[in-house]
Amino acid sequence: MREPDGVRTGPASQQGMRRANLALVLGVIARAPRSRAEVAAETGLTRAAVSSLAEELITGGLVVEEGPATPSGKVGRPGTALGLNPRGPGGLGAEIGVEHLGACAVDLRGEVRAWRRQEIRNRGRTPAAVLADLAELLRRAVAEAGLRPAGLALAVPGLVGSSGGVLQRAANLDWRDVPLAAELRLALRAAGSEDLAELPIEADNEANLGGLAELWLGGGSDHFLHVSAEAGVGAAIVIGGRLLRGARGYAGELGHVPVRPDGPRCVCGAHGCLEQYAGETAVLRAAGLEGIRGDWVALLAERAEAGDAEVREALAGAGAALGIAVSGAVNLLDPAEVVLGGGYAQLAPWLLPAMRAELAARVTVRPWSDDRLTVSRLGRRGPLLGAAVGVVRAIVVDPGRLAGG
Amino acid sequence: MREPDGVRTGPASQQGMRRANLALVLGVIARAPRSRAEVAAETGLTRAAVSSLAEELITGGLVVEEGPATPSGKVGRPGTALGLNPRGPGGLGAEIGVEHLGACAVDLRGEVRAWRRQEIRNRGRTPAAVLADLAELLRRAVAEAGLRPAGLALAVPGLVGSSGGVLQRAANLDWRDVPLAAELRLALRAAGSEDLAELPIEADNEANLGGLAELWLGGGSDHFLHVSAEAGVGAAIVIGGRLLRGARGYAGELGHVPVRPDGPRCVCGAHGCLEQYAGETAVLRAAGLEGIRGDWVALLAERAEAGDAEVREALAGAGAALGIAVSGAVNLLDPAEVVLGGGYAQLAPWLLPAMRAELAARVTVRPWSDDRLTVSRLGRRGPLLGAAVGVVRAIVVDPGRLAGG
Repeated sequence: MREPDGVRTGPASQQGMRRANLALVLGVIARAPRSRAEVAAETGLTRAAVSSLAEELITGGLVVEEGPATPSGKVGRPGTALGLNPRGPGGLGAEIGVEHLGACAVDLRGEVRAWRRQEIRNRGRTPAAVLADLAELLRRAVAEAGLRPAGLALAVPGLVGSSGGVLQRAANLDWRDVPLAAELRLALRAAGSEDLAELPIEADNEANLGGLAELWLGGGSDHFLHVSAEAGVGAAIVIGGRLLRGARGYAGELGHVPVRPDGPRCVCGAHGCLEQYAGETAVLRAAGLEGIRGDWVALLAERAEAGDAEVREALAGAGAALGIAVSGAVNLLDPAEVVLGGGYAQLAPWLLPAMRAELAARVTVRPWSDDRLTVSRLGRRGPLLGAAVGVVRAIVVDPGRLAGG
Repeated sequence: MREPDGVRTGPASQQGMRRANLALVLGVIARAPRSRAEVAAETGLTRAAVSSLAEELITGGLVVEEGPATPSGKVGRPGTALGLNPRGPGGLGAEIGVEHLGACAVDLRGEVRAWRRQEIRNRGRTPAAVLADLAELLRRAVAEAGLRPAGLALAVPGLVGSSGGVLQRAANLDWRDVPLAAELRLALRAAGSEDLAELPIEADNEANLGGLAELWLGGGSDHFLHVSAEAGVGAAIVIGGRLLRGARGYAGELGHVPVRPDGPRCVCGAHGCLEQYAGETAVLRAAGLEGIRGDWVALLAERAEAGDAEVREALAGAGAALGIAVSGAVNLLDPAEVVLGGGYAQLAPWLLPAMRAELAARVTVRPWSDDRLTVSRLGRRGPLLGAAVGVVRAIVVDPGRLAGG
């Protein structure tokens, strides 16, 4: 109620105002094509101001005239509708998984124009070898999409922190301190993709990007905890439409929240972490499938579907552990929703009952209901979608950076 | 890296610009008295703009000329320093504890001008009886301070949520759904304090206000988890200088994070909540002091100081439980610091060793060091200070509301 809404550090200026209004106009157009008059009505800006701002956005290649706007019942000719330019700058996403690589290109509207996935066991390979394959996959995705990316974002199964480009630790790949952005640039250059090598490149944790994809393309809430599994267990905390990154970029390590303080020793050195109950290795072990290779999520889903009691019990155990850890997070964070994403989305039918029971028993000091625990419809596509869409979102949110405003 | 910095919902305007610049100027003056020239240099605004904005702040009673500014080695007469007006609008804080009432008045600079505390057992009394006493305490505090409050904020040991004025549940007072703001207004009126009854009144959870006090008056970090104990165990999560309130205002319920999922049953209905290990009742029971009345924190501190082994062991047990719950929170939130506040600050010497050991063992996937767990110097004064200072902070952050900007 009382705390400051961020202390200003610079003066409000005419230039800053124009840049803010450029973003305001593009934001309205991004939601749906609009005539200049409609933009003026929605933003509160004058017609003249909207025309001038729209001109700048058109010149910058971000907006196109799409032909007559839908007549709105008013007298006179309908205005021309302005829409995001599908041939404008796009976003390029890449993903390094333990068992796969991915590449995705989206246009300025966030529509997927190319989607490539390659199953390949990356555990134990060197970053250079993996990035060479990834560079080739990216080259093909861009060629297929036929657009000019404005940036490249890379989803990785490990800690990136606030460095933006250095993977500090990826236990499941056995990588440490890899300057991913720089090495991917080299790999792109070696693959002859000079244009892609020139792009801004950022890396981010897959759970963060999965959470952002849920925010941008998912259920519509802007205040949620997104819980996902790939090789490890991760979470993204979204508050008021923003991802909580933490003081040094390490927020969301739900996998290492203690579930049973005296439980089994985790790879992280602590005891009884959530990953020891709901991570890939733990669930496979509980299901009697230790050491199985390939897509563990698909395998478990298939067996549970077929009625395999041991698998179902293993998933119920994982669900209970998830419920305990998530109850703590709900008591701490008060999210509007908890979203089960990544691999967990596919396993949800067998995780949810136990998870719901724990939440109902443990979230009692404030209202809670079962329907606040939902399943992501993006599932395992989340991180790669989040990577690619993030690039174009950044343009829409602050077009002044590109359009020279 | 990529998520939007909040989508604008209205046009940037000349009026909005002036209001923002008014806040910018007052923010600089609030940090330390400054000449107009210094304000211009720090803000990037022109001298003329600063003069006009300063005039508005002076007319509004928020700023005064304090005589010559410190000469800064430059040629020419030093300018007159502008400072916050100590006779400008003030802030009034009130506190309802289980065993006490408090009232505090601060001036616009946040300096305490009156501080009153009354030991009284409120458990089991009606809200009306308690508020009548509080109204009298407030009347005396304002008379002593000799200032004109701009608002009143009330710290309570319970859930307020985003209602702002209704106490939904205070287990330790056995109150439910009390429209505190409205009832305090009635009590003030009945006590003859018509002027105070006219003020904006808000209520907030004591742990939230304690955390805000730490942000404004404490160690200087703007990214921390503040853990405190009064009757219950509470936490405030501060991220980038803002209190995380959650989707419905219930964030920070660290006391109900599960520590041992099969542990003792909590008053909330769940099992093994942190409060069952580190709350007042649990610690007193572990120390063999169950049922003792009066100031439990002071009593435990005194006995631990005197070398009472049972008390020391009880506090070490509480520290370990705090360490387990806080490890989970650190893994989830990645705060720059964890601050032990409220009653825990006074008990810190006996809580810290076990707490540090748990954190070291359980926060391993990212850098962590003992010195990131600190002790608040505000201790139990936090919530009441936070209530009063919050009122004047709101003015400094957006003076346009008062000064008509």
